[in-house]
Amino acid sequence: MPVPAAGSEINRLIELLAKLPGLGPRSARRAALFLVKKREALMSPLAQALAEAAEKIVACRECGNLDVVDPCAICRDERRDAAIICVVHEVGDLWALERAGAFSGRYHVLGGALSALDGVRPEDLNVEMLLVRAARPETREVVLALSATVDGAATAHYLADRLKAADVAVSSIARGVPVGGELDYLDDGTLAAALASRRPS
Amino acid sequence: MPVPAAGSEINRLIELLAKLPGLGPRSARRAALFLVKKREALMSPLAQALAEAAEKIVACRECGNLDVVDPCAICRDERRDAAIICVVHEVGDLWALERAGAFSGRYHVLGGALSALDGVRPEDLNVEMLLVRAARPETREVVLALSATVDGAATAHYLADRLKAADVAVSSIARGVPVGGELDYLDDGTLAAALASRRPS
Repeated sequence: MPVPAAGSEINRLIELLAKLPGLGPRSARRAALFLVKKREALMSPLAQALAEAAEKIVACRECGNLDVVDPCAICRDERRDAAIICVVHEVGDLWALERAGAFSGRYHVLGGALSALDGVRPEDLNVEMLLVRAARPETREVVLALSATVDGAATAHYLADRLKAADVAVSSIARGVPVGGELDYLDDGTLAAALASRRPS
Repeated sequence: MPVPAAGSEINRLIELLAKLPGLGPRSARRAALFLVKKREALMSPLAQALAEAAEKIVACRECGNLDVVDPCAICRDERRDAAIICVVHEVGDLWALERAGAFSGRYHVLGGALSALDGVRPEDLNVEMLLVRAARPETREVVLALSATVDGAATAHYLADRLKAADVAVSSIARGVPVGGELDYLDDGTLAAALASRRPS
């Protein structure tokens, strides 16, 4: 019982807040008190935003993106290039790429990474729909924008293998020195990858 | 606009989550995605817990504590000693003392600390009710459990002055070496306070 003295309502709120990533029991207590203090400005609007989001947000059947419409706004957007599909692990990765504003094609959200350790198998990921989309005549390229981790590499390898059947080019985003990165502070793996992928300048 | 690609519902949710203490824009995005993934288990219950808390939680008119009843459960509890009142800045401090289980009297929550910098004046704090409670015949002692900061010290000084009119003993919780604290790692101020408050052993 985190707060013996307060009502069960606030205890329940703290318990639920503590389940959010980035909030532990201590910060959940702080957040709950903050919410009670900002009842009109934050607590009630947040309650409503959560209820609305829970009701309205759906996963796009085409690409797995989250939106209030299905297909999602990106899949509906005729200005976006349907010939190129960028494959990401999670919706958060899609958001990151959209914020960067560097990609104007369509996306495909796998919903995770293959992981022997966590028991994530190919059938747990949104792979079949990717194969369907890749096999469509308008699709020319699939870009794998997956994590530079063991699980990400395993997923990329599996997808590249499965995509061989489709008549598409398969590429991966580059590994190298991040923009603004100082060599001195980079890990050995990144330096080795950047060297191996060197290009004529 | 933090997430250009998603519906406005999820943007609104992220904006509100980012206002919580301990969550920035990045962790608010992570939390929002986590919530959408755990719709039944977390998102809907949290929406309901927030709505219920916003509706039911009130500040105790007696002591300023938060509860679903007024007076709060602590002020109602006849087993708690009404002769001693422990004054704290915030409800979170009251919770901390209750978790420690070291105090069996009543509380008084000021709702902040005097602060010239932040413009918090005596009339912004729950002081008048403390004076009313201190003047009651059953009250024998007021313990100031305030922060060991400049603002906390200013508040303690002000309260001690105002409480002179009431026929009560006024005390402050001790400053010293925390339990488990190693001298080597303590700041000079704490060491000086611990030395100045030394007791025969």
